[in-house]
Amino acid sequence: MAYSGDPILAEELLFRPAHSIIDQSLNSRLGATTTNGDGFGIGWYSDGAEPALFKSVDPAWNDPNLREIAGRISTPLLFAHIRASTGTPVQRSNCHPFRHGRWLWMHNGAIRGFHQIKRDLLMAVDPSLFADIEGSTDSETLFFLALTFGLADDPFTAVARAIGLVEHVGHDHGIEYPMQGTVATTDGESVWAFRYSSEGQSRSLFFSTNVTALRVLHPDVEMLRTMGEETRLVVSEPLGDLPGAWNEVPESSAGVVRPGTDEIRPFQPIRP
Amino acid sequence: MAYSGDPILAEELLFRPAHSIIDQSLNSRLGATTTNGDGFGIGWYSDGAEPALFKSVDPAWNDPNLREIAGRISTPLLFAHIRASTGTPVQRSNCHPFRHGRWLWMHNGAIRGFHQIKRDLLMAVDPSLFADIEGSTDSETLFFLALTFGLADDPFTAVARAIGLVEHVGHDHGIEYPMQGTVATTDGESVWAFRYSSEGQSRSLFFSTNVTALRVLHPDVEMLRTMGEETRLVVSEPLGDLPGAWNEVPESSAGVVRPGTDEIRPFQPIRP
Amino acid sequence: MAYSGDPILAEELLFRPAHSIIDQSLNSRLGATTTNGDGFGIGWYSDGAEPALFKSVDPAWNDPNLREIAGRISTPLLFAHIRASTGTPVQRSNCHPFRHGRWLWMHNGAIRGFHQIKRDLLMAVDPSLFADIEGSTDSETLFFLALTFGLADDPFTAVARAIGLVEHVGHDHGIEYPMQGTVATTDGESVWAFRYSSEGQSRSLFFSTNVTALRVLHPDVEMLRTMGEETRLVVSEPLGDLPGAWNEVPESSAGVVRPGTDEIRPFQPIRP
Amino acid sequence: MAYSGDPILAEELLFRPAHSIIDQSLNSRLGATTTNGDGFGIGWYSDGAEPALFKSVDPAWNDPNLREIAGRISTPLLFAHIRASTGTPVQRSNCHPFRHGRWLWMHNGAIRGFHQIKRDLLMAVDPSLFADIEGSTDSETLFFLALTFGLADDPFTAVARAIGLVEHVGHDHGIEYPMQGTVATTDGESVWAFRYSSEGQSRSLFFSTNVTALRVLHPDVEMLRTMGEETRLVVSEPLGDLPGAWNEVPESSAGVVRPGTDEIRPFQPIRP
Repeated sequence: MAYSGDPILAEELLFRPAHSIIDQSLNSRLGATTTNGDGFGIGWYSDGAEPALFKSVDPAWNDPNLREIAGRISTPLLFAHIRASTGTPVQRSNCHPFRHGRWLWMHNGAIRGFHQIKRDLLMAVDPSLFADIEGSTDSETLFFLALTFGLADDPFTAVARAIGLVEHVGHDHGIEYPMQGTVATTDGESVWAFRYSSEGQSRSLFFSTNVTALRVLHPDVEMLRTMGEETRLVVSEPLGDLPGAWNEVPESSAGVVRPGTDEIRPFQPIRP
Repeated sequence: MAYSGDPILAEELLFRPAHSIIDQSLNSRLGATTTNGDGFGIGWYSDGAEPALFKSVDPAWNDPNLREIAGRISTPLLFAHIRASTGTPVQRSNCHPFRHGRWLWMHNGAIRGFHQIKRDLLMAVDPSLFADIEGSTDSETLFFLALTFGLADDPFTAVARAIGLVEHVGHDHGIEYPMQGTVATTDGESVWAFRYSSEGQSRSLFFSTNVTALRVLHPDVEMLRTMGEETRLVVSEPLGDLPGAWNEVPESSAGVVRPGTDEIRPFQPIRP
Repeated sequence: MAYSGDPILAEELLFRPAHSIIDQSLNSRLGATTTNGDGFGIGWYSDGAEPALFKSVDPAWNDPNLREIAGRISTPLLFAHIRASTGTPVQRSNCHPFRHGRWLWMHNGAIRGFHQIKRDLLMAVDPSLFADIEGSTDSETLFFLALTFGLADDPFTAVARAIGLVEHVGHDHGIEYPMQGTVATTDGESVWAFRYSSEGQSRSLFFSTNVTALRVLHPDVEMLRTMGEETRLVVSEPLGDLPGAWNEVPESSAGVVRPGTDEIRPFQPIRP
Repeated sequence: MAYSGDPILAEELLFRPAHSIIDQSLNSRLGATTTNGDGFGIGWYSDGAEPALFKSVDPAWNDPNLREIAGRISTPLLFAHIRASTGTPVQRSNCHPFRHGRWLWMHNGAIRGFHQIKRDLLMAVDPSLFADIEGSTDSETLFFLALTFGLADDPFTAVARAIGLVEHVGHDHGIEYPMQGTVATTDGESVWAFRYSSEGQSRSLFFSTNVTALRVLHPDVEMLRTMGEETRLVVSEPLGDLPGAWNEVPESSAGVVRPGTDEIRPFQPIRP
């Protein structure tokens, strides 16, 4: 889940919604697994500094520290992730979001056959970045490939090249559909989101409707009146059932949420 | 899950069955919750000594140490439990099975309104036992009440008196149905199991069919040929789909598995 | 460690000082043990709300989440504690500070023979408070006794009666020196500290010198110029070596740090 | 600590000796740090199978599961390690011993400047082994280099080539003394131990005196009479003070403990 908008208490996002991400950790409806109990993480920005991280290997639904600090964190940009391991160890360094400098990165999905192609992918990471890889997941490897391909300058292109490399290397090893999943990344000002899979059947991804439009639809919903104009949520599963509030990101698409006009566009990997 | 029979590797019980207790930790079909990810525990006997315990607050499905040691533990009597907390903290001292001397104790269920009646119940525990209580659960309190009422001498009566006290104290506090759940306890030789709830709608409990009878039913099932005559499993959910293999324990019943003839009988709490 | 003064980032207190509490977790000079690696906790106030807690069973020196959030917490009143267990389990519910409503409580020391007298002490806790006890330590029991004896109204008297009861019950059980240690407690506005042991050889306790006086002593120390007038630290061990900065609390004494004039006075338990 | 000899209960080695490895986790005398609280691990053999591992990020001194299983593990060959991190995360995959097939590996020390040279060292690991690396430590990297250079065929040469590569790559990056530490490795039958550092000032390493010789020295020591002839311990610190029982491995040496005659010989890295 990614939130961008007026500063908000993290608990408003993490615990208040009917089908919040904490609820999803126990009862996911759309995810690949019902239970996402292999750790969690949140990352948030404040005061122009580098983002802070709170990550744990405990299931999110029962972590008392998360509840404590969620009531004390006010932030205009929050990333939150719940993990269901696809094979790599349950350890903090494998929990999302991953951080590098000002950037955060989350991935919901998997690189298939990662064990086979891990070495080739890691060799493609810029040597000056290599030693900053802390964990052992496919998701963090994808992040460092995107950093290598210029994430800080042009996220759309960098992620297209990173996924293009994954498909190229995967196909070389006989993996038919190497890439699956959705990705969200941010520099603290804009949020980029990607939905793509080699087989064209990607994990779900939704964004929330513009608040001004939602107010017209639902003039009686109190919460919408106090919500800032720039509020935008990008989520794997809708957090509630308000009609018109959630829009699916189409297959093979990417978008950006930023101050001013947001944008959504087709996405295709760029092969090396 | 309770196993009694010929010595067996713990992994044969914990990981091999199609719907093993480890699988149930992620995908319970009959339990009150789908996910039982708030810790787990196993207790086992060998060499006539006091039982050993391995308990952890991590979800059972992903604990590498459990997989390692399950392949090294050979035992004629194993208790295994997966926890879904009903409110008390996720900490090792709250994981089942609980141990006192030679006795192990597991509870699947809850004492309703426990927060209100906890003090009265703890006051009823024998003062010489009181300080041995390590955690903060309703289930461990019930164990110590049973110990107070003579578990070591007559388990059927002791548990009936313990549950009777819970109902008595609960009713005094206006709790309509104080007791819910199934209990298994053992001294290392016999296993006693109880299914009872104040409202007469108890959590599920099954026992496995006598091996000799099963062989007649399924002459082709290889595994049954090598299994000892005395093998008996008591479980909250059947571990597989073999027709005739699993029998539900009736409402308000208790039973004992022991060398020689097992027994099942009606169960009613004994009020103080 | 207790800090009271102008709002400050927690990391300034936890990580910056040469002999910070985090350093003490590995290298305590004055404590009963060199290593305090059995968990830690911090509690802090902001915005007039109830205090927040961040507690963990990991050693403080290596907890990445503590480092992350310490840089984001700005508070005028911080409690921090590192634990060396005296026998009770290493679990979050046994980590200090303990909280009840607006109150925080930390104890450095032990109730001797606690296993023997635990039941009698718990019986003396007000029944309406009893079920709020979450862990199993002597220190939390002492907190709830103080709450029972009116901590919210008169902390000096309430703690004197709590310790008096501990000594009374302990002597009844043949324990010569039941009480050992220092205590700090706060309602978010004032901080009370106690140094007392039955044998008159208590764990160490220090308070920092008034900032105005320190500035006269050390006109060149930059940090003192920016520090607020009301800054006061109460610690088990001095955080640095600045001459004149630290004053030992005398044996059998208690004090209060509050807006306006602080105070220190003799302390004696009040027997029941 | 490495034990080879008659089958013994793990608790006899881990908890009984006056200065056992568990005691060393809190109070190391000879180690680089007093406290080794960043996790621990044991690995052991039985029945000709691959070794089992029990590893945890908790401090060894306070892990209840370790105490439980140590009383149930009987083994002729045990490795035990307590960790003080030199910078890499405290996570199970970074705890020693590391395992690959039948082999176990422990390292007490560090590769200096590992962050700088990690990529070059990992590139030298055999591609077929690369994806089996689970953690992020220098010690595991050294293990996989030794496997690459033929550990299974000739441990002395393989380790010499692995350390030689570390020195070669380190010197290329301007690191004066890249290698520090002692290494123990086993295939379940023999135990090889190495003491070497680039600067010639290696961490301590001791081996126990032949039992037959010890009996002559100490005819009255009961324990020696029951101990098997083939018993040999290799440790970073002596486990007790029995005169004549412990012998320091000389600088730049390597040895092997095996059925029949043990051996110790000079050790020099082999540069690529």
